[in-house]
Amino acid sequence: MSHQAMNGFGGKVLTLENMNPNVRKVEYAVRGAIVQRAVQIEKELKECLAQRGRISAELLSFPENSSVFVAPGLKRKRAASSYSHFKQAHKPREPGVLCSRCHGVKKPFTEVIKANIGDAHAMGQKPITFFRQVLALCAYPDLLEDNKFPEDAKQRARRILGACGGQSIGAYSASQGIECIRQDVSRYIEKRDGGIPSNPDNIYLSTGASDAIVTMLKLLVCGEGPDRTGVMISIPQYPLYSAALADLAAVQISYYLDEDRCWGLDMAELKRALSAARTHCNPRVICIINPGNPTGQVQSRQCIEDVIRFAKEEHLFLMADEVYQDNVYAEGCKFHSFKKVLFEMGPEFSSTVEMASFHSTSKCYMGECGFRGGYMEVINMDPEVKAQLTKLVSVRLCPPVTGQALLELVVNPPQPDEPSYSTFMKERTEVLAALAEKAGLTEQTFNTVPGIICNPVQGAMYTFPRITLPQRAIDTAKEEGLAPDMLYCMRLLEEEGICLVPGSGFGQREGTFHFRMTILPPTEKLKVVLQKIRDFHVRFTKQFS
Amino acid sequence: MSHQAMNGFGGKVLTLENMNPNVRKVEYAVRGAIVQRAVQIEKELKECLAQRGRISAELLSFPENSSVFVAPGLKRKRAASSYSHFKQAHKPREPGVLCSRCHGVKKPFTEVIKANIGDAHAMGQKPITFFRQVLALCAYPDLLEDNKFPEDAKQRARRILGACGGQSIGAYSASQGIECIRQDVSRYIEKRDGGIPSNPDNIYLSTGASDAIVTMLKLLVCGEGPDRTGVMISIPQYPLYSAALADLAAVQISYYLDEDRCWGLDMAELKRALSAARTHCNPRVICIINPGNPTGQVQSRQCIEDVIRFAKEEHLFLMADEVYQDNVYAEGCKFHSFKKVLFEMGPEFSSTVEMASFHSTSKCYMGECGFRGGYMEVINMDPEVKAQLTKLVSVRLCPPVTGQALLELVVNPPQPDEPSYSTFMKERTEVLAALAEKAGLTEQTFNTVPGIICNPVQGAMYTFPRITLPQRAIDTAKEEGLAPDMLYCMRLLEEEGICLVPGSGFGQREGTFHFRMTILPPTEKLKVVLQKIRDFHVRFTKQFS
Repeated sequence: MSHQAMNGFGGKVLTLENMNPNVRKVEYAVRGAIVQRAVQIEKELKECLAQRGRISAELLSFPENSSVFVAPGLKRKRAASSYSHFKQAHKPREPGVLCSRCHGVKKPFTEVIKANIGDAHAMGQKPITFFRQVLALCAYPDLLEDNKFPEDAKQRARRILGACGGQSIGAYSASQGIECIRQDVSRYIEKRDGGIPSNPDNIYLSTGASDAIVTMLKLLVCGEGPDRTGVMISIPQYPLYSAALADLAAVQISYYLDEDRCWGLDMAELKRALSAARTHCNPRVICIINPGNPTGQVQSRQCIEDVIRFAKEEHLFLMADEVYQDNVYAEGCKFHSFKKVLFEMGPEFSSTVEMASFHSTSKCYMGECGFRGGYMEVINMDPEVKAQLTKLVSVRLCPPVTGQALLELVVNPPQPDEPSYSTFMKERTEVLAALAEKAGLTEQTFNTVPGIICNPVQGAMYTFPRITLPQRAIDTAKEEGLAPDMLYCMRLLEEEGICLVPGSGFGQREGTFHFRMTILPPTEKLKVVLQKIRDFHVRFTKQFS
Repeated sequence: MSHQAMNGFGGKVLTLENMNPNVRKVEYAVRGAIVQRAVQIEKELKECLAQRGRISAELLSFPENSSVFVAPGLKRKRAASSYSHFKQAHKPREPGVLCSRCHGVKKPFTEVIKANIGDAHAMGQKPITFFRQVLALCAYPDLLEDNKFPEDAKQRARRILGACGGQSIGAYSASQGIECIRQDVSRYIEKRDGGIPSNPDNIYLSTGASDAIVTMLKLLVCGEGPDRTGVMISIPQYPLYSAALADLAAVQISYYLDEDRCWGLDMAELKRALSAARTHCNPRVICIINPGNPTGQVQSRQCIEDVIRFAKEEHLFLMADEVYQDNVYAEGCKFHSFKKVLFEMGPEFSSTVEMASFHSTSKCYMGECGFRGGYMEVINMDPEVKAQLTKLVSVRLCPPVTGQALLELVVNPPQPDEPSYSTFMKERTEVLAALAEKAGLTEQTFNTVPGIICNPVQGAMYTFPRITLPQRAIDTAKEEGLAPDMLYCMRLLEEEGICLVPGSGFGQREGTFHFRMTILPPTEKLKVVLQKIRDFHVRFTKQFS
């Protein structure tokens, strides 16, 4: 008799009930339910538009009153009345007109604007020419013979290829990343930090920053019950952190940023959170995102010093997520790397505080998310642990080599005496200037709307405004089993085609509501988006009052 | 008083003792100690050769007997005798000559041949022209105006770009992968499997196959103590599996392949392993690698049927690692996908057995390891679990888009009526024919060596010959704290510059010894490698007898 018959195996081997319970607890709002609905609407719109396109083409070939017009798919006998029906039903931007051929879509918009994620190119930002030239040369080295490519691009491509196995970006690299790229990352860090030394052996290239952050957290997690590793993360937070902690069954220790002080970090709050956590876990890590995601604040040098001191005093490993290091817009704000401040605090700190800092090719002025490039620098890490880290990353063989190549260009861009320099600088400056403009525009516009309060977007790529919701909206959400700001964002998506992420996906103080919106859409489109949200907010508030 | 002072915090926050204990247990021999040593030797050789190059250049500018010759770095007074010293010391391939400027390197070889890993391009294999043309076009779309690129390459690039956010491969894709690529993967599978339907919703693009394998295992792991998930893996195995299981604290259930029957899978052994495991864990998964890594066998259709029946009877989730599906060389052998066999067994099986199959861009004829492209197809997965899987992969945002683009080309290569077809077919055929030749050559050569027994390399990219080691070598290894085949491989590396992976890194029957070697080096180089291993083996055996 088979084991199945013996034990009475019934349904699936793998079910919701018997799958990994940690995975079930994982949540990642940035790509959650609202984004799935957005994609669905997008698909329906696309089908509807394609259908409309086919019909328009046919319509064009028939005179207005022709009785022989046959719309595609309709039976001939109904043809006579078709023309005017289609003309009506498929007119865009006419809410409430139901068209049976468009799967019930009756949206007053023709495109979904996905402002839920910091995806610059998807929002129309153009790649940096030099970067893409070098990547094309690396992909297809025959182009090295082509006169159309500038010499500096060719030289970079030759250097990258020379460091690849068999001179091909199709070979595996070392698991820690290509050596000469790690050297250039170190030089970049040294230059950024005013000469404080960086050791290429401490650089680990990664598959985007997410990969390195999860790897670092994984190393740090141990213990059971009250000895389980606790990890301090800011609230609001970027949900990669909560997701990774759920996956690793680590304990999340939430410290709240101070919305009234421009999402500032409050030392008393850090201490409160830590001592509350000590009763039920073993706090070992503090994570900081600077510039802030989703909150857009830029930390002062003083604040960074305080955090470092806190980490040392409380014996915490410091994880500094600095992927927005070029994205600083507000006057008086400046990016200070945790490493630089650490070393400026003297050897008492710089030789003791253990730290990892993360960077990525996905943000800043380049916004090359799809390449999944990134790195981390580890400081004061125990050499034996570092050997374990190196072993751990080797299991996945290597980060994508195209992402590594792109990172090489980010840390080693064209120099003033090179042919590509002026174009590079022009492109870079334009992107950052536009972002600064949009940061200001966003803050100003939101603050004119009654019921929306918006902190300055000092840096990064997001605004996280606070919204006042009427009690009846909160009650309705409860009835529908939704977070109130999820209800708000879902309605906004259905009515205006704008996809935001509800604040509940990032965490927020009980009883407050927010949403995260990226400031990446092109200025003219951003203006429309802001106007639409404004109108929607007024309408929503009225509707539920 | 600070917490540190209170609790007497001493050294590091993160140490070998208090780091994640599961990570400590992870081992990955393919990039283990021997490879680190190989990289070190490579570096030393490179420095030595560079030094030698500089010296040769200087030597050239001086007549043989000139007394004014000054070797770089040497003091002028010692100059007179330098010339002949350098000429001697830096002569390559002269074992035993010690050169103080070359960090003690005195290797009788000038290059390390890394036959430890299936890295085709690193071994000199050229990329498929069409693939790289399309990738260059995607990276730098200005090239779409260039007449040098064939129309079909441009058309593919336009299609891929059209499916990317903002028409840029720098945008994030959907977490499951770009939709039109998933559709093409489905079509590829349908064609491969003689029309058995494949649903794009069941396709998940991934960062190489490793990523998808780890993700799938992660979903399947739950329970504590005797309820902990057990996963059946073949021994010898590809160490990604044991590494992932250690990381997830799942229970490894080893079933041994039958070396005497060409590494065949024995059903009785499967049953033995399973029932032994039921005493201490909850077996839920069986993993199969076909064609085999590291063992190179190709499973018969009958064997696959037996495994599927076993999985159904024993209520196991089936994971089929089929990344070598194009790499079948032996006469009479054919690749049968688990999915095709499953569906041919009728609805009793095809509608019940839960399965995931994995594929990659890294192997087969393309060997594009650096791009980290891959996919998995899930079959009969509970829809609620699938939703959890989709959520889980969303946390890492998306697989590298260049890897996705490459996968698109692999599953949708040039067609007979397209301009790139003949070149593509020529390149593809040449690679596979050369591999088939090398598979035969390897088996034949090894089987002429007394003390080496080698199964036919029916498929994949590796040979896993069994080596007889003298007792004194085994004893010496024990004294040095090494596995005996590690001692063997280390000596081979030091003496001949050939890097293999000891069989102990893959698992093998107690008391037997093996190594894994890739058959990827170009034929002429492979001949040299085989000859060197042969000579070494004879020497090693003599030395320890």
